[in-house]
Amino acid sequence: MTTLSQSHPSPSKIIAPNAPQSQDSKPKIKVGVLGATGTVGQRFIVLLSTHPWFAIESLGASARSAGKAYKDAVKWKQVTPIPSVAADITVKECLPENFKDCQVVFSGLDADVAGDIEGAFRAAELAVFSNAKNYRRDPHVPLIVPLVNPTHLSILPQQQRLHSPPLSKGFIVTNANCSTTGCVIPLAALEKAFGPIESLVVTTMQAISGAGYPGVSSLDILDNIVPHIGGEEEKIEWETLKILGGITENEDGLKAFDMHSRKPLRVSASCNRVPVIDGHTECVSVRFSRRPPPSPQQVREALVAYTPEALSLGCPSAPRKTIVVHEEPDRPQPRLDRYFQDGAGVNVGRVRQCQVLDIKFVVLSNNVSIGAATSSLINAEYAVLKGVVQ
Amino acid sequence: MTTLSQSHPSPSKIIAPNAPQSQDSKPKIKVGVLGATGTVGQRFIVLLSTHPWFAIESLGASARSAGKAYKDAVKWKQVTPIPSVAADITVKECLPENFKDCQVVFSGLDADVAGDIEGAFRAAELAVFSNAKNYRRDPHVPLIVPLVNPTHLSILPQQQRLHSPPLSKGFIVTNANCSTTGCVIPLAALEKAFGPIESLVVTTMQAISGAGYPGVSSLDILDNIVPHIGGEEEKIEWETLKILGGITENEDGLKAFDMHSRKPLRVSASCNRVPVIDGHTECVSVRFSRRPPPSPQQVREALVAYTPEALSLGCPSAPRKTIVVHEEPDRPQPRLDRYFQDGAGVNVGRVRQCQVLDIKFVVLSNNVSIGAATSSLINAEYAVLKGVVQ
Amino acid sequence: MTTLSQSHPSPSKIIAPNAPQSQDSKPKIKVGVLGATGTVGQRFIVLLSTHPWFAIESLGASARSAGKAYKDAVKWKQVTPIPSVAADITVKECLPENFKDCQVVFSGLDADVAGDIEGAFRAAELAVFSNAKNYRRDPHVPLIVPLVNPTHLSILPQQQRLHSPPLSKGFIVTNANCSTTGCVIPLAALEKAFGPIESLVVTTMQAISGAGYPGVSSLDILDNIVPHIGGEEEKIEWETLKILGGITENEDGLKAFDMHSRKPLRVSASCNRVPVIDGHTECVSVRFSRRPPPSPQQVREALVAYTPEALSLGCPSAPRKTIVVHEEPDRPQPRLDRYFQDGAGVNVGRVRQCQVLDIKFVVLSNNVSIGAATSSLINAEYAVLKGVVQ
Amino acid sequence: MTTLSQSHPSPSKIIAPNAPQSQDSKPKIKVGVLGATGTVGQRFIVLLSTHPWFAIESLGASARSAGKAYKDAVKWKQVTPIPSVAADITVKECLPENFKDCQVVFSGLDADVAGDIEGAFRAAELAVFSNAKNYRRDPHVPLIVPLVNPTHLSILPQQQRLHSPPLSKGFIVTNANCSTTGCVIPLAALEKAFGPIESLVVTTMQAISGAGYPGVSSLDILDNIVPHIGGEEEKIEWETLKILGGITENEDGLKAFDMHSRKPLRVSASCNRVPVIDGHTECVSVRFSRRPPPSPQQVREALVAYTPEALSLGCPSAPRKTIVVHEEPDRPQPRLDRYFQDGAGVNVGRVRQCQVLDIKFVVLSNNVSIGAATSSLINAEYAVLKGVVQ
Repeated sequence: MTTLSQSHPSPSKIIAPNAPQSQDSKPKIKVGVLGATGTVGQRFIVLLSTHPWFAIESLGASARSAGKAYKDAVKWKQVTPIPSVAADITVKECLPENFKDCQVVFSGLDADVAGDIEGAFRAAELAVFSNAKNYRRDPHVPLIVPLVNPTHLSILPQQQRLHSPPLSKGFIVTNANCSTTGCVIPLAALEKAFGPIESLVVTTMQAISGAGYPGVSSLDILDNIVPHIGGEEEKIEWETLKILGGITENEDGLKAFDMHSRKPLRVSASCNRVPVIDGHTECVSVRFSRRPPPSPQQVREALVAYTPEALSLGCPSAPRKTIVVHEEPDRPQPRLDRYFQDGAGVNVGRVRQCQVLDIKFVVLSNNVSIGAATSSLINAEYAVLKGVVQ
Repeated sequence: MTTLSQSHPSPSKIIAPNAPQSQDSKPKIKVGVLGATGTVGQRFIVLLSTHPWFAIESLGASARSAGKAYKDAVKWKQVTPIPSVAADITVKECLPENFKDCQVVFSGLDADVAGDIEGAFRAAELAVFSNAKNYRRDPHVPLIVPLVNPTHLSILPQQQRLHSPPLSKGFIVTNANCSTTGCVIPLAALEKAFGPIESLVVTTMQAISGAGYPGVSSLDILDNIVPHIGGEEEKIEWETLKILGGITENEDGLKAFDMHSRKPLRVSASCNRVPVIDGHTECVSVRFSRRPPPSPQQVREALVAYTPEALSLGCPSAPRKTIVVHEEPDRPQPRLDRYFQDGAGVNVGRVRQCQVLDIKFVVLSNNVSIGAATSSLINAEYAVLKGVVQ
Repeated sequence: MTTLSQSHPSPSKIIAPNAPQSQDSKPKIKVGVLGATGTVGQRFIVLLSTHPWFAIESLGASARSAGKAYKDAVKWKQVTPIPSVAADITVKECLPENFKDCQVVFSGLDADVAGDIEGAFRAAELAVFSNAKNYRRDPHVPLIVPLVNPTHLSILPQQQRLHSPPLSKGFIVTNANCSTTGCVIPLAALEKAFGPIESLVVTTMQAISGAGYPGVSSLDILDNIVPHIGGEEEKIEWETLKILGGITENEDGLKAFDMHSRKPLRVSASCNRVPVIDGHTECVSVRFSRRPPPSPQQVREALVAYTPEALSLGCPSAPRKTIVVHEEPDRPQPRLDRYFQDGAGVNVGRVRQCQVLDIKFVVLSNNVSIGAATSSLINAEYAVLKGVVQ
Repeated sequence: MTTLSQSHPSPSKIIAPNAPQSQDSKPKIKVGVLGATGTVGQRFIVLLSTHPWFAIESLGASARSAGKAYKDAVKWKQVTPIPSVAADITVKECLPENFKDCQVVFSGLDADVAGDIEGAFRAAELAVFSNAKNYRRDPHVPLIVPLVNPTHLSILPQQQRLHSPPLSKGFIVTNANCSTTGCVIPLAALEKAFGPIESLVVTTMQAISGAGYPGVSSLDILDNIVPHIGGEEEKIEWETLKILGGITENEDGLKAFDMHSRKPLRVSASCNRVPVIDGHTECVSVRFSRRPPPSPQQVREALVAYTPEALSLGCPSAPRKTIVVHEEPDRPQPRLDRYFQDGAGVNVGRVRQCQVLDIKFVVLSNNVSIGAATSSLINAEYAVLKGVVQ
């Protein structure tokens, strides 16, 4: 038994004394990235370039990029240089045969192509961890925020069994929309401490990076707010139920996501695009089932105390602290606080009573980290530790 | 009987065929501006420079500015030049004896000095229309959003009578905080159509101009949001009740603001500063007392139909249309829509059902126009038409 | 003889007592707009909707928009509503037969299609005033900044005569690139007063609206500068010579643009995109041929005194004042000064000695007004007054 | 003999195989920070908290902060948390007796107090490395950009000797203004390779952080440019001469800065404030004395090859690469490139011919790092290695 502590480049990460047999002593797991030239793909590559367990083997993009060295195919937009482990890899088309040496494939594909490609990769017995929205509503695909519901991986055997033909290794795991992710992490902490939440009103102020590149025109957002993001409110309102809900077994022996039906949860979201580069800020009000509801101080303590299984189990990319609770009245702020835990943790501030529901607070999460590639990555780490990835 | 139609510089303004005896045929009313060099003061001067009834007589500022020509005392920050009617006026200290030729005084003073100065002006029998917060919670001072509750002027005789010594002409009228103003106008339209509102959850995204000049440091707001504005949430939660409530008569014969007590209204506000120059955007959810609540389409129709008395009575600065309801899914936006009705009207969009309360929508109001100086101005116009200003 | 003074909607415009036979007493001239749904096309429509001489007859856009009402085809991005005179016009494809009732056609077409379409319209005997770059370097097409060199219209008979087949009414007139325009207007004033300029070093800070819509991605410009605009430096360095130069007659009797060859002018430009919505700011240093050079004060006076022929002749869209010279040390600023003369005038500030060349100053011009549609419009007005448009 | 390579926290830093007797084996040098709560002071503390040689001993600020723990006195505005080594230090008034245990004092004081305080510290035999402007023009105080002219430390014995009373250990060393610093580093590289530069025209686009906190009002810079920064152009025009010039000995045996008089250098600067948070971008044109001048390719090679003595000597904070030359046409950009070498290196791009002078290019430097605290720090490191600090 050894620990994971030496393996990660960042000193801010976990020491997990009771981690299972360390992945570190094994050869690295070969991984591929789909949509490697896009915004999310670039983030995957940055994160994977220093990962203790994973080694980039293959990069996939559109036919237009295929055949070029990655450094020539990509319009690199990160503040750090292109990692040398990726720069000279020849980009391939997103076909399963081009990724047959990979044990894990991360997908940063756009939704207009992700459905077919990810499906084909799964059918070819590849383990796909996807940031795309296409399979999130599939009744056999788990929608996992790794700091909340990684146990939903338990649906995978059913996903494989019901596939035609049945699969032995291939599967798809999705992670949530960036604005959903930031919100459900503190909600999970609150439900763990105080039982079911009954109502949620959330107003988001979302960063432009959430729309990819080129994404939002500067003429639409300088000195402006756009009070609408297509499909975003529906995602928050639906995904929250799937993530915070459990898995039940029906009479026919099939597992199903219960959509929080043990205690119905009403969610109302209003989404806005704001001139912030990275970091989604959300004003959240909740009403608990429990009467009387917890006090603001009890809520603060529950948030700070929250320790997800991904951390205790030893996922190297899991943030050492999941939620920081700010005491200053004017925090969290995206420009100052989005780098907390390298963007893998969540900031909460202004916990106070709500005159209409019970408690309100402000959440800030880094949409390009825990809101996107980092979640896929921790999901894969968790799956490795649980033996789901073979 | 004549109309007001020729009197106003803007072709977009009202024709009020049944207006009372036109003010236009009379000599102009001499007015003063307190805090004339500040942000709100500059707006008063722009608006007054083309006003059909009012003529700038005196400008007041701090002792540091007193004695200088206005153009030399002011750090002018408007996109139009300093009006020639003001440029060469010698700025005076804010002492009542310097304004004794004025019938009306507009105050754009900062809160740290407004209390004493406005009180002294009232005591000197001057009619003060104030944008400052100091007297808003005074039980004898009306807090008036002119497109909502100008009838609250009826408290003024009591304010004068209870003053020591009693007054015959002096009084103070306040207008609301900029973020309150944008919100209560559509709420007033909804209460008029559908009866009392029971709950209100509002999240604001407020422009930097709301903080005055120099106000918000650029280092605090570029690529950032500040999820806190000192005292702002309390203002919305309190002022809304005073404005939307009525006036009752107590057993002792004294009038009192009822704070919406006929049907208690719970208000929960979350206020954010965003990198927008002008225009406050607010995401609003409401629950009505009435069951079943109105449909989104009924709400839209009620908002469009709303015609405040300030318009029908013939206030020249009242917007011809009070509320525009946008049908496009991504409007209103501050940069594109804040000039509606020269900033005196209110934009509403995205009227839809709320999963937690009944109805939600987005409000955009121009904080430097209807949210500040324009409201004071319409209040004064209304008072003139009602014979309250003598 | 009558004046033009009543004809223009803005009170800030010219009274031209010696104007030729007023256009105002005649029926309006029917005009078309090519590229009507684009950024420049929208500006043309706003300007034309209140124009004293021109009436919008036809609107042209891509096949995708053809057949739709303009209001349905356009993604309107102006701060004023769609003018009612345009809202319901059915958009047509940009084919000459669809514009045969127009006497004048304004083109806001993108460069990738402007060459062919404008050529076809000219061949169909239409008078084309183009904002596109395609014909600017054509040796028979004038490149006209209307406040500088409208006399270059004298090349048009040759353009028509050399066309195959020769034309009687059709021609193309171009106006300059937005960043060139702002710079050459004060330079023309200086050359008029002090003789030839010998060297020019200019660094631009250009607004995002100069790139059209969607144009610059917000991820490229928030908290950022892009120190490069494709082709822009070459445009400034070349166009300046054509505009400030004269027309000479060669031995073969043909007229030719002399590219300032009477006294060679060296131009060095550095172009930057900055996070400003409208208004190009340029830091300019010049060296005069004349020794000793003029003093800063002489330069200021020459700039203020500059009165172009477009104004004295009576073009209704020509700014009443061409150049304003700011005395405050921190002006001009785009946000405060871009509306000078409704964007048709030019701001100059900080006129002072240059340690390397002779004189340096800051220029601010409104790239969406005088830098684009307004220039085309004044060019057309000038052509009407000169009888060039028939 | 050992190397410095293990001592620095960043893997991107220097390996200096021939460094003199390592400082690392000695006890840490105790240092103080003056103006510790200000913007520059906060940067000093971040940098010093992980420094291999220096240990924070004392923190000085205004009387208002004195007596408080640093974490309570400071309004922390960095994206990393307050270093634990500083958080609980009790802030003192800026009096020499409070810093008597320090061997080195870094000053981030505001100019309005820096003159007196720094003078008093020097008189108390403290070694002061100052970022303030007050002593930059003193004929006995070196003005040192550490990657350019650290040899100017040779004036210090004279500074001490002429002090009244003469000093044995106390002195003041200043570093340059942030906009000067970025510019002179590539100029030094060019002069080293190609001999004297004769003329320099530079236009800056400077970040808001250069003005400190609260500094620039958001109302002055959102959607705007301010084409003026008080005193900045004069600083660039004067400081460049002192830094790039040499030290001569007069007839009286006194050393003097020659202000580049061996070959007069004319400098013309135009300074602009732009809405960028960190990173000054400068468009630079130069004319060399040497005819013919170097080609753009020769310039690129000289910039890349530049290796300052601070690097070869082994200053741990000196960037491993001093200048990176970008080949992409649209780089450097502040948001993407300001972190090069942790902000200690300089970015150059767009090296090309100038039509008026010889060569032009774009420089980007990090004003809060090499433009401020980092320069002071390297100056101190250099002084330690040279035995100047005792």
